[in-house]
Amino acid sequence: MGWPAAQAQTKPSRVPRSERQAPVPAAGPRVNKADSIAIRTIFDEALLRGQSYENLRYLTGKIGARLSGSPQAQQAVEWGRLTMEKAGFDKVYLQEVMVPHWVRGAKEKGQIIGEKGKGIDVAVCALGSSIGTNGKLKAGVVEVTSFDELARLPEDKVKGKFVFFNRPFDDRLIEPGMAYGGAVEQRGRGAIEAARRGGVGALVRSMTSARDDNPHTGNMRYDEAVPKVPAAALSTLAADKLSLLLKANPGLEFELEMSCQNLPEEKSYNVVGELIGSKFPNEIITVGGHLDSWDLAQGAHDDGTGCVQSIEALRLLKAAGLRPERTLRAVLFMNEENGVRGGNKYAELAREKKENHLAAMESDGGAFTPRGFNVEASPAVVKQLQRWAPLFRPYHASDIKAGHAGTDIEPLQKAVQPKALIGYDGDSQRYFDLHHSALDTFDQVHRRELELGGANMAAMLYLLSKYGL
Amino acid sequence: MGWPAAQAQTKPSRVPRSERQAPVPAAGPRVNKADSIAIRTIFDEALLRGQSYENLRYLTGKIGARLSGSPQAQQAVEWGRLTMEKAGFDKVYLQEVMVPHWVRGAKEKGQIIGEKGKGIDVAVCALGSSIGTNGKLKAGVVEVTSFDELARLPEDKVKGKFVFFNRPFDDRLIEPGMAYGGAVEQRGRGAIEAARRGGVGALVRSMTSARDDNPHTGNMRYDEAVPKVPAAALSTLAADKLSLLLKANPGLEFELEMSCQNLPEEKSYNVVGELIGSKFPNEIITVGGHLDSWDLAQGAHDDGTGCVQSIEALRLLKAAGLRPERTLRAVLFMNEENGVRGGNKYAELAREKKENHLAAMESDGGAFTPRGFNVEASPAVVKQLQRWAPLFRPYHASDIKAGHAGTDIEPLQKAVQPKALIGYDGDSQRYFDLHHSALDTFDQVHRRELELGGANMAAMLYLLSKYGL
Repeated sequence: MGWPAAQAQTKPSRVPRSERQAPVPAAGPRVNKADSIAIRTIFDEALLRGQSYENLRYLTGKIGARLSGSPQAQQAVEWGRLTMEKAGFDKVYLQEVMVPHWVRGAKEKGQIIGEKGKGIDVAVCALGSSIGTNGKLKAGVVEVTSFDELARLPEDKVKGKFVFFNRPFDDRLIEPGMAYGGAVEQRGRGAIEAARRGGVGALVRSMTSARDDNPHTGNMRYDEAVPKVPAAALSTLAADKLSLLLKANPGLEFELEMSCQNLPEEKSYNVVGELIGSKFPNEIITVGGHLDSWDLAQGAHDDGTGCVQSIEALRLLKAAGLRPERTLRAVLFMNEENGVRGGNKYAELAREKKENHLAAMESDGGAFTPRGFNVEASPAVVKQLQRWAPLFRPYHASDIKAGHAGTDIEPLQKAVQPKALIGYDGDSQRYFDLHHSALDTFDQVHRRELELGGANMAAMLYLLSKYGL
Repeated sequence: MGWPAAQAQTKPSRVPRSERQAPVPAAGPRVNKADSIAIRTIFDEALLRGQSYENLRYLTGKIGARLSGSPQAQQAVEWGRLTMEKAGFDKVYLQEVMVPHWVRGAKEKGQIIGEKGKGIDVAVCALGSSIGTNGKLKAGVVEVTSFDELARLPEDKVKGKFVFFNRPFDDRLIEPGMAYGGAVEQRGRGAIEAARRGGVGALVRSMTSARDDNPHTGNMRYDEAVPKVPAAALSTLAADKLSLLLKANPGLEFELEMSCQNLPEEKSYNVVGELIGSKFPNEIITVGGHLDSWDLAQGAHDDGTGCVQSIEALRLLKAAGLRPERTLRAVLFMNEENGVRGGNKYAELAREKKENHLAAMESDGGAFTPRGFNVEASPAVVKQLQRWAPLFRPYHASDIKAGHAGTDIEPLQKAVQPKALIGYDGDSQRYFDLHHSALDTFDQVHRRELELGGANMAAMLYLLSKYGL
C-alpha cells in the first residue's frame, strides 16, 4: 500500500484537528467542548502510557488459566488486589463468595471406532461441569441438528447412544454473537435432552465458525429430573469427520474417556477498587470484567482483557486529572464462566447495603477494535447515551444501541435497578475463533485495540460520572 | 463470556429480520427495499460460498512474494488471468507495461560497532530501489527525528556519516494511517536529504508502532541532483538500541552491507476482467487491488486481499444473479509498490481509448473488519454515496467519508475524470504491524473479515452500476 505523501504531517508533534476535538453533539448544554478535550486527554494517556497491555501480559503469562476454585484463580485475586493498589485507587477490597470447583482431570480422549474396530483419535474436550465417564464409555452415535429433530426420533434410535449435536454456526449472520446464540443451546442443554431420550452422553460441535482442530469448552447444565450423562465438545473438523463417517456407516461407535469431576465448592473473591466521587460519593458506577477463565488457555480475550481494561479505565481518569464526581468502582468478578456466583454476590451485597447504583458497565466480548456500547436501559436513557455518540466517533465507539450488556452485571438489575447496564462492544469477527479454546492467548490481543477499548470505557465513565443519567 | 440464552435463535435457518433487511435511506426513490434484499443476497453468497479466501491461500502460499519484475510476479499474472476466466467473466485480458526490476540480493547485514570494535548484529533490510553498499560500508552515525533537525546540523556532524532517521509513529493518533503519513517521508526522502548534507547512507526506523525485530521495507527515491547513497530500514527494536547506544557513545560506527541492485526493466502486465453492463456497456466502473508485493513475505494484506476481493466482488454479483447495468472491470494492477506503472498504464489506455469512466474503487488497506469507504469526489457526489450508508450499516461499512481512495486508481482522475474514486476501508489498527515486513502472511488474514470486505465492495458496485452518479 502506498499512502499519499499529502497525508504526511509536517508537524508530527501535533495531533491533527480532526482527532483533537470531536464535534460537540447537538444535545444542548449537557456536553461541551471541555468534554471533547477531556476525552482526548484520556486517549493520550492510554496510547502513550497505557498499562493494560503489560498488566494483561502478567495475568495471562505468569498466572494463566484460572478456572474458579483453582490455585490460579486465587493467584489472580491477589494479582487484582495488588494491581489496583499500585494504581492508587482510594479503596481496594475483596468480596468473599463460594464458587463451584470443576476440574478437567488428566484423561480426555475421544475415538471414532470404525468398522474393523480401529479407533480414530479425534479432538475432544469435556464441557465444563460435566461428569466424567468413569472409565471408557463406548456407544453408537445418533446425529441431530436440533432438539426438535431429537424429539421426533423413535426411542430405539437414541436409547443407549451418544447424541451428537452438530448444528453449525449460521455463517450468514454478520454478528458472530448471533450465530453463537443460535447454536449454544446444544452445549448448555445437550446432555439434558440426550438423557431425556435415553442417550448415554452428548457430543457437541464446538461453538465456532472456524474450521480447525481446537475443541471449545464452555459450561453445560444438568436437570435433576433426568440422569446426568457426560458431555464433550468436538472440534469442528472432528465433528465434520464424525458426520461424514456416520453417513457411510450409521452403526459406528464412539469411545469417550473423561476424568473430569465436580469437587466441593471453594471460597473465592471478587476484587473491588474504588475512586470516590467528589460530589456524589454515594452514587456508584460499576465497571468490570470477569477474573476467572476456562482452563484450556490463558483467558486472554475471555476475559483478562475486560479485567485490565476496567482497572485501566479508572487509572486513566486518575492519571488524566479527571477526578470523578460520582464513585467509580472497578470490579473483577469471580466465576462468570460456570456459575456467575461473583456477579450474584456483588448484586446481593449492593442490595443489602442499599447502595445507589447509577449504572454498570462490563467488558466481556474480547478486546478487538472498538465499535461502541450495548445498552440495557429505558428508551429515554438509551437516547441520552446516543447523544454522546459524536464524542466517541473519532475513537470508533459511536455505535451505541440497545443490546446485551454483560452477564456479571445483569443481577444488579433486579437487585438495585441501575438506570443503565452498558456493555463495551468491540468487533467480534475473530472472537469465537478463540473463545473457550486453547487459542485464547496473549498473542491474540493487539496492544492498541486493547488500549482504545479501555480509553473508550474511561470516556463513558467520565461522562456518566459528570452528568449522571 | 456468557452470551444470553435470549439471543438464541429458535429457527437458525432464518436470518433475523434486523440483518435481512436494512432500513431504506431517506433519500427518496433512488434506492429501495429491493436493494436491501439484493445486498443481503450478495452477503449470503460471500459468507456461505465465498471463494476469495481459498484464492488468497493459493496466491500467497503457492506463488508468494511477487515484486515487480520477478518470476513470481509473472506467475501471479497467469494466476490472475486463470482465476478470472474460471470465475466466468465476459472478457479477460492483459495490459502490457514495463516495470522496474529491483532485487534484494543475498547480502543484507547491519551491525552496530561498539567501542572495542565488536559488532552487534541488528535487524535491517534494504529499502526498495536502494543501491547496494558495494562491499561493507562503515561510518559514524548521526541521529535526527526530522529533516529540519538535519538541516540545522553543522556540516561536520553529518559529512561522511550515516544519517539515522528515528522519528517514531505518533501513537496518539487513532488512525495508524495518519501516523504512517507523519513518518514515511523519512523512508521516501531520507537518502536524498542525507546525501544532500554529505551523508553516506540513510538508516530509517521501520514504519510501524509495533515494537519487534521485523524490519519493514518500502520504496525510497533518489534525486538526480544529489549522489545516490544506500538506504536501509532498522526494526523498531534495532532503532531503539542504536539510539540508546548512541547516547552513551556518540562516536560509535555502523556497518552496513547490502547487495541489492536495480536491474533492467521487465515486461509485465495488469490483469483485467469485465462483466459487460446490460444497459450502459460503455460506462465503466473499475475495482482493483495491486498484484505486486514486497519481497519479504507473501503480500497477503498488501495487497493479495485487494486482488481476491476485486475478483470476488464481480463473481458475487454474477453468482447472485445481479447482472450489472454498467460495465464492471476488475483490475489487478502491477507495480504499485515501486513505480505505479500499472496504474499509470491503465489510466493512459483509458484516455487513449476515450473510455467513459464513471467511478473507480480500490482495496489496498488490508482486509480487516469493515469500516466503510473513503471517497475522492465532489461534495455532492460524496453526499450521494453517504445516502446509501444505511444499506451498509448492517455490514459495518457505513462510514462513508472524504479520504484517500487508492494509489493505483489515482492516475485515472487526471486521465478520464471519473465522478468518484472510492477506497474500501477496513479497520487499520493491525495493518502497519505487518505492512512491508516478513509478517504479511496468509495466516494474518481472517476469512470472514476478507469475505465481508469483498461483499461490501460488491454491494457498492451494485449500487453504482444500478444508479450511476
